[in-house]
Amino acid sequence: MAKKVVLGFSGGLDTTFCVKYLSEDRGFEVHSIIVNTGGFTKEELDQIEQHAYKLGVKSHTTVDAVKGYYDRIIRYLIYGNVLKNNTYPLSVSAERLSQAIHIAEHVKKLNADAVAHGSTGAGNDQVRFDMVFHIMIPGVEIITPIRDLKLSREAEIEYLKSKGVNMNAEKAKYSINKGLWGTSVGGKETLSSNGMLPESAWPTQVTKTTGEQVKVHFEKGELTGINDRTFDHPSDAILFLQSIAGPFGIGRDIHIGDTIIGIKGRVGFEAAAPMVILKAHHALEKHVLTKWQLNWKDQLAQFYGNWLHEGQILDPVMRDIEAFLANSQQQVTGDVFVELMPYRFQVTGIESAFDLMSSRFGKYGEMNNGWSGDDVRGFSKIFGNQTAIWNSVNEEANSKK
Amino acid sequence: MAKKVVLGFSGGLDTTFCVKYLSEDRGFEVHSIIVNTGGFTKEELDQIEQHAYKLGVKSHTTVDAVKGYYDRIIRYLIYGNVLKNNTYPLSVSAERLSQAIHIAEHVKKLNADAVAHGSTGAGNDQVRFDMVFHIMIPGVEIITPIRDLKLSREAEIEYLKSKGVNMNAEKAKYSINKGLWGTSVGGKETLSSNGMLPESAWPTQVTKTTGEQVKVHFEKGELTGINDRTFDHPSDAILFLQSIAGPFGIGRDIHIGDTIIGIKGRVGFEAAAPMVILKAHHALEKHVLTKWQLNWKDQLAQFYGNWLHEGQILDPVMRDIEAFLANSQQQVTGDVFVELMPYRFQVTGIESAFDLMSSRFGKYGEMNNGWSGDDVRGFSKIFGNQTAIWNSVNEEANSKK
Amino acid sequence: MAKKVVLGFSGGLDTTFCVKYLSEDRGFEVHSIIVNTGGFTKEELDQIEQHAYKLGVKSHTTVDAVKGYYDRIIRYLIYGNVLKNNTYPLSVSAERLSQAIHIAEHVKKLNADAVAHGSTGAGNDQVRFDMVFHIMIPGVEIITPIRDLKLSREAEIEYLKSKGVNMNAEKAKYSINKGLWGTSVGGKETLSSNGMLPESAWPTQVTKTTGEQVKVHFEKGELTGINDRTFDHPSDAILFLQSIAGPFGIGRDIHIGDTIIGIKGRVGFEAAAPMVILKAHHALEKHVLTKWQLNWKDQLAQFYGNWLHEGQILDPVMRDIEAFLANSQQQVTGDVFVELMPYRFQVTGIESAFDLMSSRFGKYGEMNNGWSGDDVRGFSKIFGNQTAIWNSVNEEANSKK
Amino acid sequence: MAKKVVLGFSGGLDTTFCVKYLSEDRGFEVHSIIVNTGGFTKEELDQIEQHAYKLGVKSHTTVDAVKGYYDRIIRYLIYGNVLKNNTYPLSVSAERLSQAIHIAEHVKKLNADAVAHGSTGAGNDQVRFDMVFHIMIPGVEIITPIRDLKLSREAEIEYLKSKGVNMNAEKAKYSINKGLWGTSVGGKETLSSNGMLPESAWPTQVTKTTGEQVKVHFEKGELTGINDRTFDHPSDAILFLQSIAGPFGIGRDIHIGDTIIGIKGRVGFEAAAPMVILKAHHALEKHVLTKWQLNWKDQLAQFYGNWLHEGQILDPVMRDIEAFLANSQQQVTGDVFVELMPYRFQVTGIESAFDLMSSRFGKYGEMNNGWSGDDVRGFSKIFGNQTAIWNSVNEEANSKK
Repeated sequence: MAKKVVLGFSGGLDTTFCVKYLSEDRGFEVHSIIVNTGGFTKEELDQIEQHAYKLGVKSHTTVDAVKGYYDRIIRYLIYGNVLKNNTYPLSVSAERLSQAIHIAEHVKKLNADAVAHGSTGAGNDQVRFDMVFHIMIPGVEIITPIRDLKLSREAEIEYLKSKGVNMNAEKAKYSINKGLWGTSVGGKETLSSNGMLPESAWPTQVTKTTGEQVKVHFEKGELTGINDRTFDHPSDAILFLQSIAGPFGIGRDIHIGDTIIGIKGRVGFEAAAPMVILKAHHALEKHVLTKWQLNWKDQLAQFYGNWLHEGQILDPVMRDIEAFLANSQQQVTGDVFVELMPYRFQVTGIESAFDLMSSRFGKYGEMNNGWSGDDVRGFSKIFGNQTAIWNSVNEEANSKK
Repeated sequence: MAKKVVLGFSGGLDTTFCVKYLSEDRGFEVHSIIVNTGGFTKEELDQIEQHAYKLGVKSHTTVDAVKGYYDRIIRYLIYGNVLKNNTYPLSVSAERLSQAIHIAEHVKKLNADAVAHGSTGAGNDQVRFDMVFHIMIPGVEIITPIRDLKLSREAEIEYLKSKGVNMNAEKAKYSINKGLWGTSVGGKETLSSNGMLPESAWPTQVTKTTGEQVKVHFEKGELTGINDRTFDHPSDAILFLQSIAGPFGIGRDIHIGDTIIGIKGRVGFEAAAPMVILKAHHALEKHVLTKWQLNWKDQLAQFYGNWLHEGQILDPVMRDIEAFLANSQQQVTGDVFVELMPYRFQVTGIESAFDLMSSRFGKYGEMNNGWSGDDVRGFSKIFGNQTAIWNSVNEEANSKK
Repeated sequence: MAKKVVLGFSGGLDTTFCVKYLSEDRGFEVHSIIVNTGGFTKEELDQIEQHAYKLGVKSHTTVDAVKGYYDRIIRYLIYGNVLKNNTYPLSVSAERLSQAIHIAEHVKKLNADAVAHGSTGAGNDQVRFDMVFHIMIPGVEIITPIRDLKLSREAEIEYLKSKGVNMNAEKAKYSINKGLWGTSVGGKETLSSNGMLPESAWPTQVTKTTGEQVKVHFEKGELTGINDRTFDHPSDAILFLQSIAGPFGIGRDIHIGDTIIGIKGRVGFEAAAPMVILKAHHALEKHVLTKWQLNWKDQLAQFYGNWLHEGQILDPVMRDIEAFLANSQQQVTGDVFVELMPYRFQVTGIESAFDLMSSRFGKYGEMNNGWSGDDVRGFSKIFGNQTAIWNSVNEEANSKK
Repeated sequence: MAKKVVLGFSGGLDTTFCVKYLSEDRGFEVHSIIVNTGGFTKEELDQIEQHAYKLGVKSHTTVDAVKGYYDRIIRYLIYGNVLKNNTYPLSVSAERLSQAIHIAEHVKKLNADAVAHGSTGAGNDQVRFDMVFHIMIPGVEIITPIRDLKLSREAEIEYLKSKGVNMNAEKAKYSINKGLWGTSVGGKETLSSNGMLPESAWPTQVTKTTGEQVKVHFEKGELTGINDRTFDHPSDAILFLQSIAGPFGIGRDIHIGDTIIGIKGRVGFEAAAPMVILKAHHALEKHVLTKWQLNWKDQLAQFYGNWLHEGQILDPVMRDIEAFLANSQQQVTGDVFVELMPYRFQVTGIESAFDLMSSRFGKYGEMNNGWSGDDVRGFSKIFGNQTAIWNSVNEEANSKK
């Protein structure tokens, strides 16, 4: 009886090659799976399924992971205002981990002998898939035909042709990865350290030119309303906000970052809704959280993002950080007002029952009733006391030299 | 013989009041001092000096602190890419400390009996001045007439009139504080949590509408060149960049932050050159520093900015952090390319001999020669090993329950 | 009608003075309260109550806070292995906050007009009481007769004598503060930077000289068993362990630390059970937690301890950190074996179903089956890849100079 | 012509095997090298050299690395008070890196084709050697016969016998690794999670039973004097202190830690001088550094120790941290008084011109002249202001629900 392999399948050239290679050259019974984290339409998913069956897979599974992807990962990236190196919303990193976990669960369910993914040997994704599989399904063989065979694009096309499968020989000028939390764009310009993607390379073209006000509502840190609409699930709110903000060309940038394997990698991305949400959420937090909540959130979230990026989502420390972040969101409830404009946006204010900038406690720059100038005079003296002592001791010690 | 007081003097209503109050009501010999951190022109400084002498000060001193201000503080804010709460370049905080230090040194030089500043009892500045004075000139009396007397604007004007000094009774609609590292703008809109400053409130109006390329050059983390010009001192380069980028309306934002005294305060600011420099510098660093250099710089710099904001610049830990930051800049040398546009800018790339994104070491997304897919396979296994063990141990422990 | 004041009352000279001063000189109706955090016996509490009523208080309240003190504070100090500056278990800091909170609640319950505490103006406690009162019962007047009047010991005794109260005029050679989480000892030796407390100064004298094995059991991070005994509440287990370990003279040390008001303060302490628990708990954690759990716990717990020490227990960031710490304890279950000896102890091992040092995953120093030497070879290459690139780029860049 | 290999050589069974295997089976010209980091006597080094030449190496090199080892690594471990997981002085980790760097430099000098080390595939050392070699001598083949061939002890002995080399067949009951910064001890008891090394297993037996006072002197953080002796180099002072403190059996413990490869490993160690130095240094620092210096030193040093442990000493972030640590030591000058006793020691005090616990600034627990009770009253109000506001806002917000 043929051994079973579960294959992460996107329908592209590489994973199409994998189906044929695994079934015909390696003799596996191939079970393909696609995990949709927000990048595919119903039609695309249907086409991918048909394509899989045409290639001869034993079974094909489509997982609608969008809500779970949000609940498990994106939620915490919002709580933490996570931007890798203060730039990149970690869309691809997060998607791969969600996909890897679903694939591993499928392997368990089918009791498969092997698992395969189509990653090359030069990027982050291979590590993410490998690691999640090693952790969740230890002992299951991990097969990576693209990484191991190192075939050229042409050789793959030729091989498929010999198996009766015709794939488009033309390579897209820009490689695009779309998902709930943003779309990455790679191409000629991102392969060197200098150069911006041309206007035409961006998947979402700019069609709105007139400024627009939008009100985003957070409930305990989660996006639950846009203007006067409320949503059943925050992922729906994200998609709706994307439809409003995307056509402004908001959230485009190029990130240069550290890959897990030590090299630096550059990637373009567009992420209108994520950038608006992160900045609006942060603005609200600056009004409702204390100084040290903001400070520790930053430190933990920076680590959380980096460790997620490196594929370590299953490290239990991530659950501990999530507990911190979730606890910190109890007062992060309110409206944030944002002005959308071509290529940019501005948070213009917030309104919250938990706003610590309340006029009852004295206005910044004006005298108040809660404390007196004498209180501050005492505070300043004590607050600088240790350094005053340090200064005096050091002056004396140095004068004796 | 009259006791000497050194008074921080800006020539505005509050410090004008202080001169008269200190000399005539309190009987001090008043020595006024103004420390220019980049906000005053030669003409303005001359007028302030004339005004001081007309009020009857015994001596007036003008300190040109711009270069020292950069050397002592701004340099490290650039090294650390410091933006308070990821927003505000800390311009006012940094200026006050530079001013307080110069004033304290003046007190020492004159062997004065007292020092006075014009801060109110409701903001950050009082703490900064008080603390620096307590530390540097302990025992010298600190006099704060505005904080202590809590006179209304009208009462101050009336008082001055009785002393033969006529001050403009009209209050400016927006209070402006200008310096090398940005200009703050406070007004009606910043007194509540919601509302953006109107176009007219910004000191620098938008006069450039066509995009412009600019090349900024860093030498060990310091801005030394703009396009084809080199500068004797980085502060000159900052001022030059400001003249180029300012008219685009770049770097405008509103910050809501934690004051030292515990309330939240909102302030508008424009900071074209600072924002371009910080983002360009960070982009260069992302190319030339290692992952953990970037990480630790962020953590230390966030604290550095917060602690500076709270007036603690003289804590010796600040010198230790500066040693770290300075050491980290040895490879931060190269050109950064920036596109300036109305209200925004985009870093488009960098060029550096220290760029770690070198094609010699394999391109992101393409196979390379430095290591093999098998190396990464081994890496992934070991990198996830502890969590794999954790998972296995926990599954077993839980199954026994 | 007389105004009501709630007075934190220990029955000592200072708070005895406060009763008379507040009632007779200031005309308050005095409601005394003592909050027992583990330092008082039933008999002592009864005597203190009698003493209070004899002084003429309107009401006296005894709060048995031990279990709540553990649940609210000590629990988290154990989760976090908190030792201030790696030395001091923060016993006094934690007690004061527990006491302050109970007193503030009593003020609310009685709807009192004022609250009084007997702290002097030279230590940490005044800040802790003041802060908790400002936060929990804003607007209620805080009266601190000892801090404000600065009477000498003799003057207080004289005053009381004039009111018909005779207090012992002799000052104890060492001031002792006892509680669930340790006993502090201050005296001549701790007033300077050099000198150890003499054997006689320690409240618990050494009466055990023969080594003794003890097994301590943790359940999700909490001490629930000692040897073959289990306990209804961890505070009972702590007290029982103290009875076993105390007579060995374990956990004695002198701490020099930063007071909230900026000076350095030195204090002796003995804390047999706390030190054994903290080290045993940490040993167990090192076996069951991942590397980054241990790392982040340390960072957060160090801050938690410092911020608690500074009286900031009510800052909501403390709740967020507690959420992290509690979440991290899910696997911290098992036995820890400890050898108690005169003046010292040694953790000798642990046993836990969650132990990650399982022989199934390869023994340290011996080959295993989970991965191969080739895997590690690949790991090492990739793990050092960025620094290898850095080194190569820098050698080249420097050679061109 | 035969290719050259540089072999890290200790003279033990494994590296003896390597010489024969590399020269006779692999045809290399073998250049052995031993790097002494404090564990070998002159006599032992001579014997190892003779043994190497007898085995037929082309050259043998002995590097006296003690002073350089101190200057490059140990110094910073002292500055940072580094104990891994608050337990282990990182002696072996630090030694291996020092050795690896010297070996790599030797490879460069000889222009060798390959480098070999005798590590197994189950521990940390392989990663440390591999990484340093990949970084410093990229492209040079790394040969690890023990890891790759996985021969049993018996097979190695048999192989060597066949080559005319007779090695002692008996395995020592405990494996010992001695160096300047401590001696590790592995054996039966350290292979499981429970069990302490027996008295006989400790290399340094307890011969002193009477307490002894010792004064250690630090100069800018470095140990330069013991009692009335001064030393040319701190490494000499360490060795001298070891000769005094070692016979007390001080500094024995068992550490359970995270290996680089993800498993937990347990190891015994004795480190009398290191433990006394680290605790004495820390005590001095607690007197002379400010609160935040202590805090940041801890955070950076914990990372520094962990990253060093993982072999990452060449990451430039380590240089940045060293710059911080070195800068922080400018006032760490003074005497520390320590009482040595069997199995333990107690720091009893310090004396330093930079001591911040100066009676001039008010005594802890007694009133002082630098500030008043009113100053502290004001401080407490402002210091708790944000949480007071938070509390009030939240009470109101919650009451409206």
